[in-house]
Formats: sequence, C-alpha cells, structure tokens
Amino acid sequence: MKDTLRRFQVEKISEKGREEKETLIIAEKPVTLFLNGKEVVTLLATPGNLKELAVGFMLSEGWLREDRPIEKVEVDPEGVVRLRVNYRNPLVEKLFLRRTITSGCGRGTIFYNVLDSMGAAKVRSSAKIAQKRVFYLMQELNRRSVLYQKSGSVHGAALAEGEQIRFFCEDIGRHNAVDKVFGAAFLQGISTAGKILMTSGRVSSEILIKAAKRRIPFLFSYSGPTDLAVDLARQVGITLIGYIRGNRMMIYSHGERVAR
Amino acid sequence: MKDTLRRFQVEKISEKGREEKETLIIAEKPVTLFLNGKEVVTLLATPGNLKELAVGFMLSEGWLREDRPIEKVEVDPEGVVRLRVNYRNPLVEKLFLRRTITSGCGRGTIFYNVLDSMGAAKVRSSAKIAQKRVFYLMQELNRRSVLYQKSGSVHGAALAEGEQIRFFCEDIGRHNAVDKVFGAAFLQGISTAGKILMTSGRVSSEILIKAAKRRIPFLFSYSGPTDLAVDLARQVGITLIGYIRGNRMMIYSHGERVAR
Repeated sequence: MKDTLRRFQVEKISEKGREEKETLIIAEKPVTLFLNGKEVVTLLATPGNLKELAVGFMLSEGWLREDRPIEKVEVDPEGVVRLRVNYRNPLVEKLFLRRTITSGCGRGTIFYNVLDSMGAAKVRSSAKIAQKRVFYLMQELNRRSVLYQKSGSVHGAALAEGEQIRFFCEDIGRHNAVDKVFGAAFLQGISTAGKILMTSGRVSSEILIKAAKRRIPFLFSYSGPTDLAVDLARQVGITLIGYIRGNRMMIYSHGERVAR
Repeated sequence: MKDTLRRFQVEKISEKGREEKETLIIAEKPVTLFLNGKEVVTLLATPGNLKELAVGFMLSEGWLREDRPIEKVEVDPEGVVRLRVNYRNPLVEKLFLRRTITSGCGRGTIFYNVLDSMGAAKVRSSAKIAQKRVFYLMQELNRRSVLYQKSGSVHGAALAEGEQIRFFCEDIGRHNAVDKVFGAAFLQGISTAGKILMTSGRVSSEILIKAAKRRIPFLFSYSGPTDLAVDLARQVGITLIGYIRGNRMMIYSHGERVAR
C-alpha cells in the first residue's frame, strides 16, 4: 500500500476554523502497456496490481486471447508493462488499425461494433443467488475497500463465487478496478464464466460489456446503472443489481436468478 | 430533460419486501464527432448539450483553436455532431497521427506530453475568493443538479464567476460534464480565463489539465483529488479545493487565494 497512498500537508476548513493537516491522497500514475514490443495504450491508474491491470485491460479490449497463455509479463516500476505472447491474434491487427480511425478517448466505436457480435454471445446461466447473499457480498466489498476508507476517491471491484470474494482490487478508475480483477483471475488460470462481478461504481455500458465478454451472469453495484447498461443487461442475459445499500437493492434485469 | 432520463420497470427489495417499481434512469448514448468531415472520436454521453460537448471536447483536446470562431456545428439527433472550421490547426494533423501510436482509451500519452508544455503555461491570477463564497457556490451546484437528484449516477460541472454560476451541465461522465460547460462558454464567446470550475466528481490529473489549459485559477470539487492532480495544481498555480461539504472543505493548493 506504500505506493498507493501519499501523505500531503493540506489546509482544512471546518467549524473549528482553518488548520494545517496531514492527509492521505490516492495515487494516480500513467501506465503504458506494450504487446510484443508495440505500444498499445497509456492508462492512468493507481499503482499496485499493474500486471493484473495490463492483462485484464488487454483481455477486455480483445488484445489477448482467453484460451492461450501469456509468455511473459514484465512490470517496470516506472510505469511500463510489457507483455509477450507467442500466438497471432487476428484481432490485434484490426485493433491497431481501428485506433487510427475511431479512438482518442472514447473507446466508443470499437465497443459499439462489438455490440453487434454480442447479440450472438448471450450469457447463459441457470445459477441463482439468494437476496441475503447479495447483501452479504456487498458488505464484504465495502469492508475490503481499505483505500476508499483511507482516502475516498477510489473504486473497488471484486470477482465472487458462492459466498466468497475470490479477487478484489481498488483503483481510481472504475474500469481499471474491474480489469485488475479480470487480470488477476486470468493469471491464476481461473475462468470468470458463471461468476459474480461486483463494483462500487456506476454501471455504464462499457462495464456491462466487459462483464458480458467474460460471460458473467451477475453484476452487482453499490451505485446505479445507465439506461444503455440496463438495455444491454436485459438483452444479453445479465442479472444487474444496483444501489445495494443496507437492506435495499434494485434489480434491473433477470430477477429470476435472485431467490427470496 | 425528456431524453436524459428514461422510465424503467424494476424490482425493488427493501424492508417492505420485493415489489415492482417504476424508476428513472440516466441516459447514455454514443456520440460521434466529426471535424471538417473527418471522424475524431466516439464519446459515451448523456443526451443534451451535445453541441457544447463536441465543442468543449475538441477545445480541451486541442482540435479547435480558442482564438478562432467555429464556422458551423450540426447536431444530428442520431448522435453525430459535425463541426466545420475554416482554419488550419497545425495540431490537428499531429493529433490524428498520435492516435495511431498512443490512444485507444487512455488519452494518456497525448496528455502526458502536454504536461511538459504546461510548465510554461502557469495559471496566473491575483483573484481571491472568500471561504463562505466557496460553500455558497457548492450549494448552488448541488441545488442545480436535477438529474442527480432524480437518478443518481450523474456528474455536474459548472463555470462560475463572482457569486454566480454562469454555465451548468450534467453528464454520466465527469469529463463530459466539464467539456459541456467549456463548450457552452466558448459558443457564447465567453472566456474561461480567471473563472471558477466546479465539479461534483473526483479531480484526476485529466480534469486538472483541462482546467489549466483553459487558464482557470480555481477548481472546486465535492469529491477528492488524486496525488497527481494535487502535484499539478501546486505546480501550475491552481487553487484546488475538495470535499466541500456542509461547512467543511480541504484546500490542497494555493490557499493564499482563499480569504477568511
């Protein structure tokens, strides 16, 4: 945790007046990813689990194949992660090409072409979850969010199965936290299919698509979704639950998987 | 507001049991920007103020020049905004080129090269603001955040001057909300220099750099900053205040501009 939080001297104004104070602030750092020697992207992320971030991001965006191992991952403390794979991914050439046309910051068009192909890739699962387990898992997520408790301004994500959180990561970016969790699972050879993805953050269409690509039937959030995320969840077969707080929650799609 | 919120039938679980319920959910839509016929980017944004979003985004990212007018902006309800300018921006060729190397989703490298040049562009201002005015403005921001009050999951941003909020916008994206406000000011021919930028969201380095480029000396947030944002604020001369809630706030940099 030593790199993820930094001490700063700041001024606090409160009913007690104005005072100098030491506070902990979450770290943000540019992290550049390379695949087989070619630069892919620079992300802004919280230090820690950078290997997992790189793998998860490249998996989410289609740069890596889920069915093939990674040859080598090297993390340089200056914020560079180099991955090597010894297979040809037909998507990669396309991704390098597409970036020349559509990216910049939105990731939008790449994603929104993927939508078409997602229609075919419905998330099928006959799994059920009891209401009380949803509450329990969200409490667990909150309990583990140590950086959040210390600094605010950070998102937590987890991959859970049954009663248990298997992987948990925090990051200043909602997307990064989810990618770190996916990368952690992949590096341990654990499939995400059929599991539960949890996030403290809002569920935008991008988060929902990340889950759908990993064949995850349950997506739980402390916050709320966008309309597009709800539309997609209903369409692809994901049980999307939001605003899980105290003893309340909102089920936006596929409530048949939530047992009383 | 008719396009920004959509009604959904969902299931609510609470101490009262499980019930069908109608709820309002914030809209998210892909918006593709074109400049002089060339596709620039696809953003995911909340409908409303799409003209302002397009102009603000392109201004923030260096596609537009601040000192020259825009010839034409056309918003197509399907989510396409076409801008026309009749000048050559030497940066534009570079930006199209850079994207082939570094973008994808992070925007990182473009930004982090900009950092170097920012050293030269310090935000100079002898303006002061009284503590109580900071609290008052944040209350105003909260009061105006109508979409947030109705749906949660949305960020507000405002450009303020003196006691007054001049422009206010909401969006599912922190960056989008700020860009909408900048676009609105530019379209009315109002300079952002010397004004106050307010956001409900976290202050990452990207938000701070956006403010610095617009020569804004005051950046106020309901939430907290990252360490990189604080470092940059101290370096470029921005008064960064976070966690402005009730009668408390944290001053992270250049507190000499905050009068008691």
